[in-house]
Amino acid sequence: MYPEILHAQQVILLCKERGIKNIVISPGSRNAPLTIGFSENDFFNCYSVVDERCAAHVALGIAQQLQEPVAILCTSGSALLNYYPAIAEAFYSEIPLLVLSADRPSHKIDIGDGQTIRQQHVFANHILFDTQLEVINSVEDQEGIATNERLINKAINTSISQHGPVHINIPFEEPLYNKVDQPSLEVKVIDLLKDESSIIPESFIDQWKNAKRKLVILATLNPPVFQKEDLDILTSDPSVLVMSEVSSNVVHENIIWGIDTLIAPIEKHDDQIKDLQPDLVVTIGGMIVSKKIKQYLRRFETKVHFHVGKRKAYDTFFKLAGHIKVKPQLWIEQLPKEYVKSNYQKRWTDHFKDYLIKRERYFEKMPWSDFKVFELLFKELPNDIVLQLGNSSTIRYAQLFQMNPTHVVFSNRGTSGIDGCTSTAIGAAIASNKPVTLITGDLSFFYDSNALWNNYIPKNFKIIVINNSGGGIFRILPGHKDTMEFDTYFETQHHLTAKHLCKMHSFNYQSISEESAFAKAYQKLQSNNKQPQLLEIFTPRRTNDTVLLDYFKFLK
Amino acid sequence: MYPEILHAQQVILLCKERGIKNIVISPGSRNAPLTIGFSENDFFNCYSVVDERCAAHVALGIAQQLQEPVAILCTSGSALLNYYPAIAEAFYSEIPLLVLSADRPSHKIDIGDGQTIRQQHVFANHILFDTQLEVINSVEDQEGIATNERLINKAINTSISQHGPVHINIPFEEPLYNKVDQPSLEVKVIDLLKDESSIIPESFIDQWKNAKRKLVILATLNPPVFQKEDLDILTSDPSVLVMSEVSSNVVHENIIWGIDTLIAPIEKHDDQIKDLQPDLVVTIGGMIVSKKIKQYLRRFETKVHFHVGKRKAYDTFFKLAGHIKVKPQLWIEQLPKEYVKSNYQKRWTDHFKDYLIKRERYFEKMPWSDFKVFELLFKELPNDIVLQLGNSSTIRYAQLFQMNPTHVVFSNRGTSGIDGCTSTAIGAAIASNKPVTLITGDLSFFYDSNALWNNYIPKNFKIIVINNSGGGIFRILPGHKDTMEFDTYFETQHHLTAKHLCKMHSFNYQSISEESAFAKAYQKLQSNNKQPQLLEIFTPRRTNDTVLLDYFKFLK
Repeated sequence: MYPEILHAQQVILLCKERGIKNIVISPGSRNAPLTIGFSENDFFNCYSVVDERCAAHVALGIAQQLQEPVAILCTSGSALLNYYPAIAEAFYSEIPLLVLSADRPSHKIDIGDGQTIRQQHVFANHILFDTQLEVINSVEDQEGIATNERLINKAINTSISQHGPVHINIPFEEPLYNKVDQPSLEVKVIDLLKDESSIIPESFIDQWKNAKRKLVILATLNPPVFQKEDLDILTSDPSVLVMSEVSSNVVHENIIWGIDTLIAPIEKHDDQIKDLQPDLVVTIGGMIVSKKIKQYLRRFETKVHFHVGKRKAYDTFFKLAGHIKVKPQLWIEQLPKEYVKSNYQKRWTDHFKDYLIKRERYFEKMPWSDFKVFELLFKELPNDIVLQLGNSSTIRYAQLFQMNPTHVVFSNRGTSGIDGCTSTAIGAAIASNKPVTLITGDLSFFYDSNALWNNYIPKNFKIIVINNSGGGIFRILPGHKDTMEFDTYFETQHHLTAKHLCKMHSFNYQSISEESAFAKAYQKLQSNNKQPQLLEIFTPRRTNDTVLLDYFKFLK
Repeated sequence: MYPEILHAQQVILLCKERGIKNIVISPGSRNAPLTIGFSENDFFNCYSVVDERCAAHVALGIAQQLQEPVAILCTSGSALLNYYPAIAEAFYSEIPLLVLSADRPSHKIDIGDGQTIRQQHVFANHILFDTQLEVINSVEDQEGIATNERLINKAINTSISQHGPVHINIPFEEPLYNKVDQPSLEVKVIDLLKDESSIIPESFIDQWKNAKRKLVILATLNPPVFQKEDLDILTSDPSVLVMSEVSSNVVHENIIWGIDTLIAPIEKHDDQIKDLQPDLVVTIGGMIVSKKIKQYLRRFETKVHFHVGKRKAYDTFFKLAGHIKVKPQLWIEQLPKEYVKSNYQKRWTDHFKDYLIKRERYFEKMPWSDFKVFELLFKELPNDIVLQLGNSSTIRYAQLFQMNPTHVVFSNRGTSGIDGCTSTAIGAAIASNKPVTLITGDLSFFYDSNALWNNYIPKNFKIIVINNSGGGIFRILPGHKDTMEFDTYFETQHHLTAKHLCKMHSFNYQSISEESAFAKAYQKLQSNNKQPQLLEIFTPRRTNDTVLLDYFKFLK
């Protein structure tokens, strides 16, 4: 069945033609024409999620896995505004989302009708393209029909080619619920012209050849882009030091996977750390998580910085010299095969290996704490899973461990918000054919508690909540700890547990608060795939920060 | 203590000078200078609420009660975007909110720093004024200091004079946590010039005198504006028919309080309903809830419409002839004392009285249903409470009952969203010296489930959740009921209960699912004031709509 309204038919037909299969729908009346059109057509996989903040993050998680646009559909009014956190995340992490909002016709805005706001351009700051469709009342309205066709095609093309969110606002007038058997019009696909560039500028090659200390930073790379052979080539140049972040999905023996572990012990010793200073920096991937490397490269005034890859280039160190818009693999292929003499790579990878030996000694005596829990988890996580990491302590702790090369790692690092980590992980679990595990802190988890109100959660989905009774990350920052003000307004101490939410939403629940209980609980978590599982691990809030800060001191 | 950062001191000092006492703070690091400044100064009442969507609605509830600006403070990034639903509600329901967002300095935006988005003008569509402060690094920077003073004063003045939300974006650079004993600068208050008008245009008086059928609609009026004497004067004119909505906070024997009860039985009979058609319509208050009166006055082409009051005038019937910007009480005082001959009022108030007799007969045989629950509740609610009504079934059912004149009624009818009803009610309960009761539907309640994550809920706060296992309002709309698509994407059927959330957040919980259990549970709800209470009332989802639609048929 199709909605009777003609411009609703256009949206449905063009989504179908362009292969946009996944639609996350939040309930409403104004959006009824599209809800009917999507839900009564077998081509589409529709998901009903009530809280629009969660719905948009679920769509983000699906799109992150499939690397194709996912549509979100809501009614008019403040419903739409609840999409905004996920839209900003999609904008910065370059994930395609097609936002479809129902609205009243323009002359019904700001005249006192219910559930009516100014929806046009409402996401102006963080949207790649936004538009409003024309109301089509007759198949004779050829101009209107062609205009809508162009706008819908442009929105979809922009979302695909520029990898991000676009917004189509769609005015509907009553009657909203009428249906027809067949669409009353046809639609025309306006295809995307691909611009594939593969040329690396000569000026870059010259600088690369001459630089004795080249630092390559691999940040978020989803989906994974490198084969082992690419990394072999890159690291065979002794003047190239490669550092990878946890969400780079890169593991290689000659690559430094623990940026903070390398930098923290020496960052306050100018004589030692200046030896790390590169002549040339190349970044590949999304935003960099490590604050330490950013601060370092700003403080020591990086000489020249190139970004490689198809997507956005950020001038993170204020020295961006060029954006080489080719695929990272192609870039590696075209690098010069003669190497300048240098001990840059060896010096620092050796250094890093020394730290890793010391690190083992620290781990042996490490007490029960957030850090200890991460150590246990990263030893035990099974192979071949999708790992979703919450913001922001979680991903920072994870950066201190080497990735399992069979894992694919994701985290909402576009805006680094805590507002939709669980919903995003659930979206990923819906779309992925691998099992998904989310590791998250307590504030992130409780913030997005409505995420569990979702009828599509796979039975093998697992959540591990590390509950330190507040925002533990604030204890690591230079605030004034253990005052009433600190506990209330920074750490935001609480005594909540995930137990009741699990009961409410049919998750199997376990909790532990000491190391000796870990093995058994963890084994149960992993072996039970009949129902979504949550393991809550309580850690002592007052000692977590000391354990971490002592680690960096110990490495010195 | 004060923050060391100078422009943070300016914000703190000006809030204090202008009497902005209530500050709802969400945790973060970037906002540390302001968090320190507010929380370590006894002048301010600070509230810590983690989920910014809830935090902003809590502030809205406080401001709604106090009728003065309340500040909300958050860190940078997507945190701010979660304020948007409450900001739009404040914009349309004309409630003063001062939005304070911490940010990085402009040159750190879009260079890949964490938790950084484009915060400037992000609420452009729904904000009365927005600005960004200058970074002040020295007390010598007299121009910068004066500029900030002007901007902060302008924001506060706009919020007060135009009754709505304003946004100040405040860039901060590290170090963020340093404090000083005394402020390093002074601030200047730039006061608000009040424009008090009290003149009614002659042209209105002429039209009023001559009109034989004058319809006055009283919509949302918070705080209450009329005394009984005002309403006596207004209704003593036989050509004036007054209709009041539930949130008008007006009760009077000659005023029709049940608009839908009056219109529904005759709306499809043109011969009967055309007799209701007025020569002149006056609206007073915020947006009109009743769809029936809006549809009626549009369909029969209202001749001329005036809006009376200080705030916004909406052209709801497309016939707005003038906005009389005087206080409603003053307007009544100046109305002509000679009345045109007319039976307009008597005819319809008599008609309404007939309906009320019939209505009692319907109520006698009414089965257990949403409507029945509202009948029981409106009989039993104690005097002298603040009543908060959720969207959207709840307020629509409430419109079918006469208000208790000792109640003050509120509902988020600016955008009519379900996204923050509970948080708003909690904010109201924090600020009001009367006990607050929230009546809400299940979707509204579960949508805003994080509302209960709040350490400031008064012990006498009560929530009544009418749980019909989905969005019951969709069953009343003209959709296709009882198909899989309808149940999933419109009604959004679920089997959730509030029980677990109550356990999680220390609410006392009771539930009932039949009339015979009502009296006892209700008595317990009212008598226990040692802990916040929640009563969940389950109703049969498949019969609720029939019971309501039969009511309108029965009145015919």
